[in-house]
Formats: sequence, C-alpha cells, structure tokens
Amino acid sequence: MDMKYIIQKKKSGRSLTSEEIDEMVQEYVKGQIPDYQMAAFLMAVCFKGMTEEETANLTLSFVNSGDKLDLSDIKGIKVDKHSSGGVGDKISLIVVPLVAALGVPVAKMSGRGLGHTGGTIDKLEAIEGFNTRLSKKDFISNVNTYKMAIAGQSSNLTPADKKIYALRDVTSTVESIPLIASSIMSKKIALGADAIVLDVKVGSGAFMKSLGEAKDLARTMVSIGKSLNKKTIALVTDMNQPLGHEVGNANEVKEAIEVLKGKGAEDETLVALTIASYMAVLGGVFQDVNTAYKALEELIKSGRAIEKFRELVKIQRGNPQVIDNPKLFPQAQNHIDIKAHKNGYVYKIQAESIGRSAMLLGAGRKTKEDIIDLSAGITMVKKVGDKVSIGDTLCILHSNMDNCMEAEEIALNAFSIGTTKPPEIQYIYDVIE
Amino acid sequence: MDMKYIIQKKKSGRSLTSEEIDEMVQEYVKGQIPDYQMAAFLMAVCFKGMTEEETANLTLSFVNSGDKLDLSDIKGIKVDKHSSGGVGDKISLIVVPLVAALGVPVAKMSGRGLGHTGGTIDKLEAIEGFNTRLSKKDFISNVNTYKMAIAGQSSNLTPADKKIYALRDVTSTVESIPLIASSIMSKKIALGADAIVLDVKVGSGAFMKSLGEAKDLARTMVSIGKSLNKKTIALVTDMNQPLGHEVGNANEVKEAIEVLKGKGAEDETLVALTIASYMAVLGGVFQDVNTAYKALEELIKSGRAIEKFRELVKIQRGNPQVIDNPKLFPQAQNHIDIKAHKNGYVYKIQAESIGRSAMLLGAGRKTKEDIIDLSAGITMVKKVGDKVSIGDTLCILHSNMDNCMEAEEIALNAFSIGTTKPPEIQYIYDVIE
Repeated sequence: MDMKYIIQKKKSGRSLTSEEIDEMVQEYVKGQIPDYQMAAFLMAVCFKGMTEEETANLTLSFVNSGDKLDLSDIKGIKVDKHSSGGVGDKISLIVVPLVAALGVPVAKMSGRGLGHTGGTIDKLEAIEGFNTRLSKKDFISNVNTYKMAIAGQSSNLTPADKKIYALRDVTSTVESIPLIASSIMSKKIALGADAIVLDVKVGSGAFMKSLGEAKDLARTMVSIGKSLNKKTIALVTDMNQPLGHEVGNANEVKEAIEVLKGKGAEDETLVALTIASYMAVLGGVFQDVNTAYKALEELIKSGRAIEKFRELVKIQRGNPQVIDNPKLFPQAQNHIDIKAHKNGYVYKIQAESIGRSAMLLGAGRKTKEDIIDLSAGITMVKKVGDKVSIGDTLCILHSNMDNCMEAEEIALNAFSIGTTKPPEIQYIYDVIE
Repeated sequence: MDMKYIIQKKKSGRSLTSEEIDEMVQEYVKGQIPDYQMAAFLMAVCFKGMTEEETANLTLSFVNSGDKLDLSDIKGIKVDKHSSGGVGDKISLIVVPLVAALGVPVAKMSGRGLGHTGGTIDKLEAIEGFNTRLSKKDFISNVNTYKMAIAGQSSNLTPADKKIYALRDVTSTVESIPLIASSIMSKKIALGADAIVLDVKVGSGAFMKSLGEAKDLARTMVSIGKSLNKKTIALVTDMNQPLGHEVGNANEVKEAIEVLKGKGAEDETLVALTIASYMAVLGGVFQDVNTAYKALEELIKSGRAIEKFRELVKIQRGNPQVIDNPKLFPQAQNHIDIKAHKNGYVYKIQAESIGRSAMLLGAGRKTKEDIIDLSAGITMVKKVGDKVSIGDTLCILHSNMDNCMEAEEIALNAFSIGTTKPPEIQYIYDVIE
C-alpha cells in the first residue's frame, strides 16, 4: 500500500477508510511497512485525531491481527471490566466474586503489567498455590459451573496493538485518545467480552490528568464498544490519591478480602460496588444500578461475597486459609513509618509518587524481566482530608530491601499537609453510557 | 541523548536549544538515533514549526555534519544564488557570466538533480566538451582569474540534511517551511557563500503553490542567512507557467544564450537580470539595484555578456562554436507539434504538467540512475495571454522516443484555453531582504 499517501491524508486531517486502516495495520504487523512510516503516521494522529468510525475500525483491525478468545461455549452475557490503571487499584479482585455471586458469568483474563505494582495475575499469586494458568477447557468449564475464572492472557492477542504500542512508547506518541482507546478496547474484544464496564481513572496517579481528557477517553471507548456491538459503559473515577489503604500485591489482596467482608475503605467499596452494579446490569441480572448496588451490599452483609471469593481461591487451587489468617500472605521484613513533619490536614497525595515509591520497594516491575516482591508495598495510614499532627504516621513502607532511602523520600514528599481541610474528594465523577 | 524527550518537547510546541538540535543531528547521522524517532520528530515539526533561532541552529548543524568548501583563497565577496526549482529555470546559466562580467566572483557549485529536466551541470554538458569536474585548485584559480567557475558539488556536503531529506521523502514530512529552508540554506553555506540571492518560485510549477507559503519560505531563509552572518536577499517569482520558451537541457542552454545576446523572452530576461542585479549589489559592485540592472542591460547590448559566456565555455573546455551555431547542440529526431483544439486565449498553463511531459520525453530523471537525453524537451510556442486559433501550435515536443503518447496528452492538457484574455502575470511578486 502507499503509506506515504496514508500519512499525508491523516496529516491533512482527512479520514481513512476501513480498508486503508486494515491494510495498514496488517501490513505493519507483517513488517511490510517500516517503523519510520508508522511513527510519522502515529504523530500525525496525535495532532489530527481520528473520527469515531476510524477509531472503531482501528480497534477491529487490532482484534483481527491475532488470536481471538472464543467464549461462545459459556452460557449468558459475558461481562468484562477494565481499568485504565491507578495506584492501589484492586477492584478486579473484588468484582469478580461479587458479580459471579449474582449469576453473571465473569471470564476474566488479566495481565501482569509493568508499573508501580503487579497486575491482577501477580497479585493473586500472593495466595499460596493460586493457579492462573488454566487450560481453555478448564477456564470455560469453571465459568459455566462457578460463573468465574481468572487466568493470564494469551500471548498472541492483538499483536498489531502490541507492536504499535511499543513504537508509540519510544516516539512520544502515547498520548492520543483514539490510540489509547483502540488499544484498550481491542484487547477486551479479542478476549470475547459481550459487554464491558470501563473504569477510567483521572488524577495525579492516573494516565489521564484532567477530567476533560478522561471523559473524552471514556466517550471514545463507549463509542467503539457501541460501533462493534458490545454493550459498554464507562465510569470516570478519582485517582488523586491511591484507592483504599493498600498499594502492593499481597497487601492489596488482603484489602480486597476486607472489602468483601464489609470492612473495606469507603472509596474502595463505593467504586468497586458501583462497577460491579453496572456489570450486573449489563449482564441482564438487574434492571437498574441502585437495585444491583443494594443486592451487592446484601451479599457482603450476609457473608456470601467472601464465601464466593473462598470458592474462587479453592477452584483455582489456592490456599483459602489466607482469608481468615492474613499472616499466611508473604510478609516483608522491614516496615518503615513515614511520619508527618507538620500539623494540619492531608491536603493532597501525589498518587503517582506513592506508586513510584512502591515500585522502588520491589512491588512493581520497571522492565518485563524484573521480579516482583509480593510482600512489598505501602499502607496508606492517612488519606486526603485526614487531620495529622507532627510525628503521626502518614504511611508505612513494607520491604525486604536494606536501603529504602529513595522510596522513603518520595513517599514523604507525596503528602502535602495544609492548614485547612481540603474540599471533599468525589470518588465517581461521571458515568458515560 | 533522550530522543523521546526531544520529540515530546517539540510535540508540545516548545523550542529546542542549539545543543539539543546539534546533538540530535550528529547522533542521527551516526545512526545512534533510529529513523522511527526522527520520523516522529519531523512530523511534530510539520505541526509545531520551529522558531527562527531553531531553524538557524538546525541549518548550522547540517553544515557541520559534513565537508565545508573553503573559499577563503578567493578575493572579494563570494555571492551565490539558489532557485527553489521550477520548469524552464535556466537562470544560473545566465547570471554566472553576467555577474562575473561586473567583477563579482561567482564560484558556482551545482547539482544534477531529479525532476523534469537535469540540473545546471547536466544542462552544461549539452555543450560538447564542457568540463564540470574541476579540481579545487582550478576552480579557485578560475574564479580568481575570470571571476567565474561552475562545477559539480562534493558528495559529502551536509550529509545530515541528505539523510533527513530521504526520510522526509518517505514519511510525508517534506512540506515544512523550517525543514525546507534549513535544507536549502545549509547547502549554500557549506559551499562557502558570503552572500546569497534566493529565487523562491511560486505557482503551479513550483514546490510552493501559494504566495503566502512562498513568502514564508523566503522570509525564513533570509532570517537564517542573517542569523549566520550571510547577506541574504530572496525574490519571490512566478512559476505559473514555464520560464521563457524552452524546457529541457540543450534547448535551455540555447535560450540562455539568446538572453545573453539580448534576444531572450521578456519573463526570462527580467527575472534573470533582477537576480543578477541583487547579486551585484550584495557583491558590493553597485549601491542600488536599478543602477545594477541598467549596467547589466548595457553589458548585453554591448555584446560583453555573450563574450563572457564564451569565455566561460572556453576556460571549461567546451566548444564555443555552439554560441554562434545552435545546430551543434544535440538534436532530437522527433518534433511533435501540440495543437490547439479551441479558439481563444491561453488562460493557464499547468507548469508542473509541462515538466512531467518533459521528463517523460527523456529530459529529466525519475531516479538517480536514469540517463538524461540532453536533446529532449519542450518548446513553449504559446504562453499565458497569447491568442490562439484552432490548429495553432501550442508547444513542440522534442524526443528520440518512438512513442510519446503520454507526454503529448499531458502537454496538451497543461494548456487551458479561455474565451477572454487572462489578467497579466506578474513575474516578480516580492523582494525580501
């Protein structure tokens, strides 16, 4: 194909046809279009954008570039969820058993991921014996029998997106709503979802720093979903401070268990239950979100929520005793209290810095080859709005490293202490459907 | 260097420092920065531009990436000229002897070039024996003795520009004023010019299609020249029809001779003499352009202009008899008259199409490897504003090919015949100094 023409067309702000997009994507995967032409094209997209139709077509081309998970053997509407990524985001661990307990099939494929902490798959490995390498047969059979399964995802999903993402990463072309949206949505669609609930994070710890951008991304993803006949709803939620109290791997699983027991932090519980409610509505179990939310609260209160999690751990061969005895999780040797130097109120927490500190403690990967320390992480003792006095512990760092100086400094600097109480943080800014 | 950061900086519209630009250019030439990062950067420049300072710094980095011609052994102010390229542009052939006759040293290095016709060096080879491969010593000695020399340029001039231009060509990032301007100016400066007269063509046969763009390019190049302490003046001249009557190689030399004999076309003569006048002023021989122009007219009238050309041919070992006997130029076997199908006035001539037709006849190169037929070309019998009747010859194609169907069709379609006389064409739109 004439890639020079395609670049020029986009550069001058015109829309590409579905054939042009698909040919470009498939030829690029085959190595028939060089990286330098794709890089110029991606930069042109950063400036000129893509229409909703182009973005949906790009998503479909990504899906078609690799394997697709066929979930047609699973009865019912398969609802998936996706988070655009934040610090302390353990929502998947909470919603999978909750939604499954309502009878909606949740076939959850997750990644390991780079960044401040591990992905869902890494976190679950903090439970002794938990097996995320399920055969396709077992995965489907578990979802049919128990309404839930969590497994690591195939390596040949959306290879075009993978190759383009790697190029975007080194050419400063990551920040582009249509490119971000198509990348996320293509994976969900390749994983066989019928319906998708998206959690778009906004704030200092999220990729989207402004509410406007986050809403744009949410709207673009919902539009892609609709174009490709997938029921899609997006929530725009706060990431101006870590979600809940725990950032890491083992400690995040512990906190998810607390939420399922009804003892979770307010923000974590609200966001998790809202997402689960929308999943239940898309799954056809409830007509409206409020009724679903009440049913979920009831599940927690009655103990059925934590029992469903226990079932998940058992069927995937993990040790269910962790649920009652958190000491069975991997434990870090060192616990360092980060203390306030000032009296006042926690006015702001740079969530990204907390994430960076957690990564330095060993909780996350800088490169694919890094090994995660599942016991490492941070416990947020104080959150935005809390009153603090000099000497109060703001957060606790957990690590097995001898020298945590840099992580300590970053964590301390993440907290801004003010003299007045800050305005209340909203947990959910918008729902786009 | 952190090229991701540099790309991001330009993408967000910030200016690069001279160190950043120079490091980027020199590392790119060495292959330490991959093409895909440079391609993304170039596309960002297409959208965000460069300041005058950045553009001058980029030019200097191009100059410093390769060889520089040292002309310090030549006495006087070395004045060079450059044309942004047009159809039938034979001005260099005219101005070199004219300006030299005034006593200004003209050390002209020219290229072969791709396109509708050959470059100045190709054209001169239509004169039997004309030698453009001068040693540096002979080149400098000729300029000192005769005030003129024309030679092919070194192959290691501005290698950074060459490498970047090749990348721009395949990534649709050619159209960017700072990139075009720095590419042109770097070559002139590497060639040792003290002062430069630029001929920026605008119209259907030029790279710049609109007057606004052409003026922008002219202003940018003048600003680069001034930043780098080179006296620079730019003319913006018309290229809505071929210049003069001849397009090709041998026939363009013939026409240059006619101009020097005082028998040239009005447009060709006016533009060539104006450029030569500015060169004479920059060379310090005249205070003002009008006086210089009159002196040049006098040179032509007195026969000294054509005698200076004869001297040029002689000292570079060409056969001077071509000047009196044009039949000694290579002759094409076939001459095809393209005739008018309509009565009226020539309203427009698509100069680019005439160029394309000339190339198809063999007058130009599509790729570097193509061999030029020096006798091939087009004679423009009618020009914009001329009255025509059905059956009148519009132009004549000269070729040694058996089948010129495509070239004929393109040439015919290049002419638009209207019922009314078109507004008069201006030959020189602006002078920027």
